[in-house]
Parts: sequence; structure tokens; C-alpha cells
Amino acid sequence: MSDQIRTGLPGLLFDLDGTLVDSVYQHVLAWQEALAAEGIDLSVWRIHRRIGMSGGLFVRALAREVQRQITPELAERLQKLHGEGVARRLGEIRPLPGARELLGRLSSIGVPWAIATSGRAETAHRIVGLLEVPPDTVVITRDEVPYAKPNPDLFLAAAARLGRDPRDCFVVGDSVWDMLAARRASALGIGLLSGGYGREELTAAGTYRVYDDPADLLAHLDELGIRP
Amino acid sequence: MSDQIRTGLPGLLFDLDGTLVDSVYQHVLAWQEALAAEGIDLSVWRIHRRIGMSGGLFVRALAREVQRQITPELAERLQKLHGEGVARRLGEIRPLPGARELLGRLSSIGVPWAIATSGRAETAHRIVGLLEVPPDTVVITRDEVPYAKPNPDLFLAAAARLGRDPRDCFVVGDSVWDMLAARRASALGIGLLSGGYGREELTAAGTYRVYDDPADLLAHLDELGIRP
Repeated sequence: MSDQIRTGLPGLLFDLDGTLVDSVYQHVLAWQEALAAEGIDLSVWRIHRRIGMSGGLFVRALAREVQRQITPELAERLQKLHGEGVARRLGEIRPLPGARELLGRLSSIGVPWAIATSGRAETAHRIVGLLEVPPDTVVITRDEVPYAKPNPDLFLAAAARLGRDPRDCFVVGDSVWDMLAARRASALGIGLLSGGYGREELTAAGTYRVYDDPADLLAHLDELGIRP
Repeated sequence: MSDQIRTGLPGLLFDLDGTLVDSVYQHVLAWQEALAAEGIDLSVWRIHRRIGMSGGLFVRALAREVQRQITPELAERLQKLHGEGVARRLGEIRPLPGARELLGRLSSIGVPWAIATSGRAETAHRIVGLLEVPPDTVVITRDEVPYAKPNPDLFLAAAARLGRDPRDCFVVGDSVWDMLAARRASALGIGLLSGGYGREELTAAGTYRVYDDPADLLAHLDELGIRP
């Protein structure tokens, strides 16, 4: 990491689900279905609140919730079922309003950006495909780092791939886990409401600024000090 | 309404979806499907934030969102498609943890309670059926009052059917619309997180107290001054 902060043209590190793509509810229902298949009943809101965090932590948290031992084999099976459930729902998933336009604008004005998701490579790359981004887009998935969110590894790796100090990056995400990971990575977190969290929850997790969705962020890039 | 507040044994007026039954996400996806069938693309989180409000207001709010004229015929068609979408998903819907136990306990200790929902009678009665409540349960639906939430009519009608002054009732709900309607009805609002809203949103809408779900409320009935 350099000691010099490049204040003029910050990098943007994007979460994927709920931030660029309207896929959170499909993830939620895919988890609920996977859990039900293994005889675990969990209310939907409790699942929603944990979307975006590492799959391993997710399963550990829900083991506490349902007060049941979750073996590594069951955890692995649940994650596999979840991946299949999302794949089955891929046809329902759309980019969020303004997502493609925002990424295109950043590229055209020379702002470096990357995608960093707690999702596994296979599911993540399918979802990234919906965004029709250039093939050389930096996409960091759970498989490439020791720990997913709320650990900072994904965003640190994304910043490194852009050749940027994380302090010179904004993290754009929809969940509390993104915002916590941003803070641990020494980046500033920009919250989007498009994943279904409320403004106050994101603010309480330390967001620098909150916007509705990618279209709203695009309309307010000046507020981040990003100049064409 | 009487001038005497019966402080000892308040009545409880329950919202249905997200409060007693884990059905919000099914409503959300049924709305999204209905809208898509009419060529209207709307992000899922924007739909979620309006679940629980009057269907007429819902359609009006989204007309503003998508900047499109919504004729009364289209509004009616959307509501019909939504009802069919929920009916198709009925098999996925479960009572929330503690819902049946909470209602049973209230009955057994003589606390009067009712259900008041912005939903239409046909869909609402199907969902109430999942709770296995006694046939004489007071259920007020959208069809029985001039205006649904956030207007106070549903809760006023429910209180009247229980023979209670609304000031002597708690409204239990998961959405901002429940809390706003409670305040207009001069009742105190108890917020539940089980519909997917955050604690802070419910608090900002004027809740008296917030619990996780019906099971959590049941475990803390003493905090409402309800004695066996």
C-alpha cells in the first residue's frame, strides 16, 4: 500500500447482490428452500438480514438461531442446495436500475472499479453475466480469499487488483456486512437501499452516504467528489 | 367510545402478513410478477417497503415511481393478478414462530384480540386459515372499511368489534403503515421485525416497543402491562 492517498479519482468496490443486481429475494428464498429441505424452518426475515455475509458464517449464525448442531457436511450440502436454488431462479433476476449505466460511466471517466462478493465463483459469475460488463472486469469471489464479509479480505483483494490503496476506495454495498467489511478495510462505505435494508441500519453500520440504488448513486457522483 | 380507559386488560389488534404469518416475501414476489405481466419493472425493495398499505395507495405510489398513468382498470387487474400470485404461493407460507401460541395465550388469560389487515377478504381469509384460530375470531379486511392502512379505519373497526376504546388497545404490526395507522387510531403500536423492516424504521414511525416476532412478544407480555 502506498502512503499517498489519491484523492482525485477514488476507486469503487461494488458488492454484487442487492447492489448491482436485484437478486436478494431470490437468495433469501433459495436459502429458505435449502433449509426446509434439511428440515430446518427459519423465518424469512432472519435469512434476509444475513444475506451478503460469508456462507460459512451464515450457516453458523443460523445454527445458533435454530439451536441445532450443523456439521460441516450439512453446511456444505446447504450451500450446494442454495446455489442450485439461485441458479433455478436466475431467469427472475434483473440488473438494478442504473447499474449498467453507472459502471459504464465510471469506465468512461477513468474511475477504476471492481466487484467483490461473498458469493461463490460459479453463482457469482452467472449473476455478473446479467450486467454485461467487459470480460476484463475485476470480480473477486469468496473462493479467492481466506474470509468473506464482514471480514475485509474481499475488498482488500479488489483494491489490490485495481492497484489502489483501500483508503482511496469507496465500497458500495446494500448490507450491514458490506459496511462492516468496508470499515475493516479502511475504505468508506456507500450504502444502497436496493437490497432491502433500511437507511438507519446502514447508517448505524458506519456508512458515509446512502442512496436508493445505482441510478440514484449515478445521479449524485459529485457528492463523492468524483469529477468527470 | 367510552371516556374510561380500561388500563388493566388492553385489547390487541394484530396485522396479519409479516406479523402473524411469514408471508411478506410471497406478497412481494406476487406483486412483482403481477407488475411484470403488465410490462412494469419495479425493484423488489420498493415493493417490499409498501407491503401492508392499502392496495389502492400501493398502486398509486408505484405509478409515481414508474412515472406511468395507472388506470382504474389496470389497478384492478394488478390487484387481481397479485391475489392469484399469493394464492399460488400459499403452500410456501407458514405461521411465524409463536403466533399460534401467542393468540392462544391471550385467549386463555381473557385478553381480547382481533386481526385487521389491508388485504382483501378472499386472500386474507386463506392466510388466516393457516393460523388455525377459532371460527369466531374477529378478522377485519379491506372490504369492510372505507380506507385501509395507513388510515386508521381497520384498527378502529377492530376495536369497535371488540367493544374497546382504541386508546385501550395495542396495535401489533410489522410495517410502518401499521404504526402510522395505530397513531391515527390513538392506539399504541408494537412493532415486530418479522416482516423485514428494520428496528429503526419502526421506531421512527412511532412504535411504543419493538420485538423480533410473535414468540418474542409472547415472552415479554409483561412489558405491555399484560398480567395473567
